[in-house]
Amino acid sequence: MTALDDVTIRPSVTTGPISGSHKVYRDIDGDLRVPFRRVELTNGEHLDLYDTSGPYTDTNATIDVHSGLPGLRADWIAAREPINGAVTQLACAKAGIITPEMRFCAAREGLDPEFVRAEVAIGRAVIPANRRHPETEPMIIGKNFLVKINANIGNSAVSSSIEDEVDKMVWATRWGADTIMDLSTGKRIHETREWILRNSPVPVGTVPIYQALEKVGGDPVKLSWEVYRDTVIEQCEQGVDYMTVHAGVLLRYVPLTARRVTGIVSRGGSIMAAWCLAHHQESFLYTHFEELCEILRGYDVTFSLGDGLRPGSIADANDEAQFAELRTLGELTHLARAHDVQVMIEGPGHVPMHKIAENVRLEEEWCGEAPFYTLGPLATDIAPGYDHITSAIGAAQIGWAGTAMLCYVTPKEHLGLPNRDDVKTGVITYKIAAHAADLAKGHPRAQEWDDALSKARFEFRWTDQFNLSLDPDTARSFHDETLPAEPAKTAHFCSMCGPKFCSMKITQDVRRYAEEHNLSTVDAIEAGMRLKAQEFADHGNQVYLPVVDR
Amino acid sequence: MTALDDVTIRPSVTTGPISGSHKVYRDIDGDLRVPFRRVELTNGEHLDLYDTSGPYTDTNATIDVHSGLPGLRADWIAAREPINGAVTQLACAKAGIITPEMRFCAAREGLDPEFVRAEVAIGRAVIPANRRHPETEPMIIGKNFLVKINANIGNSAVSSSIEDEVDKMVWATRWGADTIMDLSTGKRIHETREWILRNSPVPVGTVPIYQALEKVGGDPVKLSWEVYRDTVIEQCEQGVDYMTVHAGVLLRYVPLTARRVTGIVSRGGSIMAAWCLAHHQESFLYTHFEELCEILRGYDVTFSLGDGLRPGSIADANDEAQFAELRTLGELTHLARAHDVQVMIEGPGHVPMHKIAENVRLEEEWCGEAPFYTLGPLATDIAPGYDHITSAIGAAQIGWAGTAMLCYVTPKEHLGLPNRDDVKTGVITYKIAAHAADLAKGHPRAQEWDDALSKARFEFRWTDQFNLSLDPDTARSFHDETLPAEPAKTAHFCSMCGPKFCSMKITQDVRRYAEEHNLSTVDAIEAGMRLKAQEFADHGNQVYLPVVDR
Repeated sequence: MTALDDVTIRPSVTTGPISGSHKVYRDIDGDLRVPFRRVELTNGEHLDLYDTSGPYTDTNATIDVHSGLPGLRADWIAAREPINGAVTQLACAKAGIITPEMRFCAAREGLDPEFVRAEVAIGRAVIPANRRHPETEPMIIGKNFLVKINANIGNSAVSSSIEDEVDKMVWATRWGADTIMDLSTGKRIHETREWILRNSPVPVGTVPIYQALEKVGGDPVKLSWEVYRDTVIEQCEQGVDYMTVHAGVLLRYVPLTARRVTGIVSRGGSIMAAWCLAHHQESFLYTHFEELCEILRGYDVTFSLGDGLRPGSIADANDEAQFAELRTLGELTHLARAHDVQVMIEGPGHVPMHKIAENVRLEEEWCGEAPFYTLGPLATDIAPGYDHITSAIGAAQIGWAGTAMLCYVTPKEHLGLPNRDDVKTGVITYKIAAHAADLAKGHPRAQEWDDALSKARFEFRWTDQFNLSLDPDTARSFHDETLPAEPAKTAHFCSMCGPKFCSMKITQDVRRYAEEHNLSTVDAIEAGMRLKAQEFADHGNQVYLPVVDR
Repeated sequence: MTALDDVTIRPSVTTGPISGSHKVYRDIDGDLRVPFRRVELTNGEHLDLYDTSGPYTDTNATIDVHSGLPGLRADWIAAREPINGAVTQLACAKAGIITPEMRFCAAREGLDPEFVRAEVAIGRAVIPANRRHPETEPMIIGKNFLVKINANIGNSAVSSSIEDEVDKMVWATRWGADTIMDLSTGKRIHETREWILRNSPVPVGTVPIYQALEKVGGDPVKLSWEVYRDTVIEQCEQGVDYMTVHAGVLLRYVPLTARRVTGIVSRGGSIMAAWCLAHHQESFLYTHFEELCEILRGYDVTFSLGDGLRPGSIADANDEAQFAELRTLGELTHLARAHDVQVMIEGPGHVPMHKIAENVRLEEEWCGEAPFYTLGPLATDIAPGYDHITSAIGAAQIGWAGTAMLCYVTPKEHLGLPNRDDVKTGVITYKIAAHAADLAKGHPRAQEWDDALSKARFEFRWTDQFNLSLDPDTARSFHDETLPAEPAKTAHFCSMCGPKFCSMKITQDVRRYAEEHNLSTVDAIEAGMRLKAQEFADHGNQVYLPVVDR
């Protein structure tokens, strides 16, 4: 029997649309149904938003976690012809083939499918989509697309259950997680992953060394290439879409961490460093890298080359160890691409603002513009309990600088395993950082969302303002704390300033005043107000001449 | 009787030190006692942090809100000799006089008093300290000092009481607010302000037009210079340290807002715009500005020239209306300085990341580097309920770019009046943004705090990690959610990864391994590990030659 037949496991997941919106599908070329989250506005307009939540928010979908999600991509995968033995999106793109996955991604982002193909072909974007994970709705990660966010879930030896992690996965994608990483290190790792994969509408990433370490009783020294390889194959077969491989932690780089304030803070990095030193041998991830490429190639699993030597504190940012590893990741990037395997590069971590841009510059230069995938970074270390915020400051900036995907950080970072509420807070915070980056990069469709909400705010369409927000429930509940009555939803003020001090109301009064003086359109208002202003100007409006300090 | 004699008002304020720290005073020149928050560490070291909390966190202080705080500055003020009729910090600085306030600020920041004087003399920094507010502990605002944060409090017609606002003031300074603004617009504005001033250890700012509007029944059209002037004098007499004056909202600028998505969002700006249009006259704040200078000069009240035309949405950022007003504020800055009155300039608001730096560049160019004091800015409008975060992203960047003080934004922004919890969240979030900016600017003492916490984290000194954080209570409670037992406070892991996967533990094992091989010092460890690494290098560590994509 498969893991999902285990009736003793009863995950309860959240279904139904986010309040104020509903699922719509756009038909593309008659063969693709691309999902969007539609927000209907009280002024008759509507806004369609990028939707990561899968069938769970579709009132017409039947959800049964024991059967998993339908295989959206099954037919596309079956129909795909190998190209020099490869069936990867990269191989297709290089051969000039536009796959259904590419068209799906193009439709989601409002871009041209050929543009998607071209970006994948040169390795500047990846579409993580294992052939054994047909349930995933294709999405693309690259600097010329919307900035994506990842949510880490997974149990530890100390905490959590399969039910909790499946619930967190659905909950995270509901609020906007573009991918999920299952970082389980506790009990029943295989079963937990199976439950997540079969029910996940987004790509799933893992760090195979964690399960390999469990297989050897938790002693890094006992690890071997064979145990690791078999674990990777097991996870490829299950349908993992991208895998973190810390192949850049070389024996000769370990000494570079000896003087650090916080040494090695990557789990995988520290495990491989321990192995290298104990055996006095180079990392088997590095020496067997081409065999790894051949394995991943067969399933179209994407490499996420891990930064095992990333800085773990402000003090260690941008140091020799970090950049030595990055150079090696660049070397491996070109190798993987030569094998037609897609590649992302993982980045820090903990970096003060003035050192952030250099990380992107060097990654693009050394790694051939492979999509950069960073963890934050935290812009300061002094606020444990608020590291979703310390890292959102860094994440927004590194996203603006060109990072393609941001790995979220929750309020529990450095302190404990995130619960359901922490997962939501982390996801919403990172949607903010990613969207702020999209705005700064001038993504064609980013600002329409801000403008729709700003307009609703100015016109006192409170319900629209709530429904257009990243988290309608919270926005509404905060407003209702002081003004719960339904009429307040159309009132021309809120409890912040009260009626008399509402600047928006006064501004509207000003416009009304102008209209009442036969100035019916905005142009006329402007003309009319300019006229009134001119009356003053004619009498010398420059009361003061510029004065320099005595 | 004075407002504080009213026994029916019984504010309850939070006293006692923040957990894990205690108040210490540094004696300067035998005549100044400068407060710091000392964190004692379990390794015998300690760290002294900048302390805004006043006597409330001093276990030796007796707090009676009905008598107010002691007049720390009373003797200094009494002894001050006028310089060409002026008693302002600016007049003294220009005359080469280093005031006790300047020495106090220098000691708090670990800088040379002469440097403080020089920065004040050229107007690049201000020390808001009304002669009628002797209770305030002097602090300095300028780009070459620690980035400061302001917390807005005050009631509205719809919500809050005197007790609530006094409690919020003490609560905000406890967590790090460098100044407070009382933006009350509801009942008993004068009494509320009196309670706040007499009990506030930090400078207090106001927007006098709010109280003036109350005096004329809330109708902007009924405002006059006389009502406004009398209100300013009333507030100067009470001890307000800085006042927001929207004197840059000129009649001819109002039409520039007609096409905006969100018009005028500043309360003061919209009030003055309404007045200008209704009367077809130039703003009385502008036409009477030199009279205002003479009034503020007499008390050493600092101007905070308000940005009444700041953008209220991403769409309106950096537009003609905003920058037209900023030019006028520059003109008024030079006027005020000529009157020996200190000046700050208020800034936005809502600005996408790529338009933030230009705000600082133009403010410094047009306003003679007067300290910039911005509200956020929010880097996106799509997350009401999370605007402390959307704005912290912008605040950290504009602080790095040179903004001297950041006005906090709470989670309730745009939705309602902040309660006690919102005030704390806003303050902690802005301490993060300000500190991230200090780090990026390379402030000499900023990184020692991060390093102390990072070191505690790496050495599993959990208690020290909690106590060194901006919010020890929250950090501790998050950790204890999953590992409440006391032994966990010294455990070499947390619930995030569990014992076997703790990278810090493995890193320490690696170092221990090296030590056991007779490598006792870090240098030796490094040498020893390099030796081991060399063994591998000698046998050709470059497995792969760089490959270009096929």
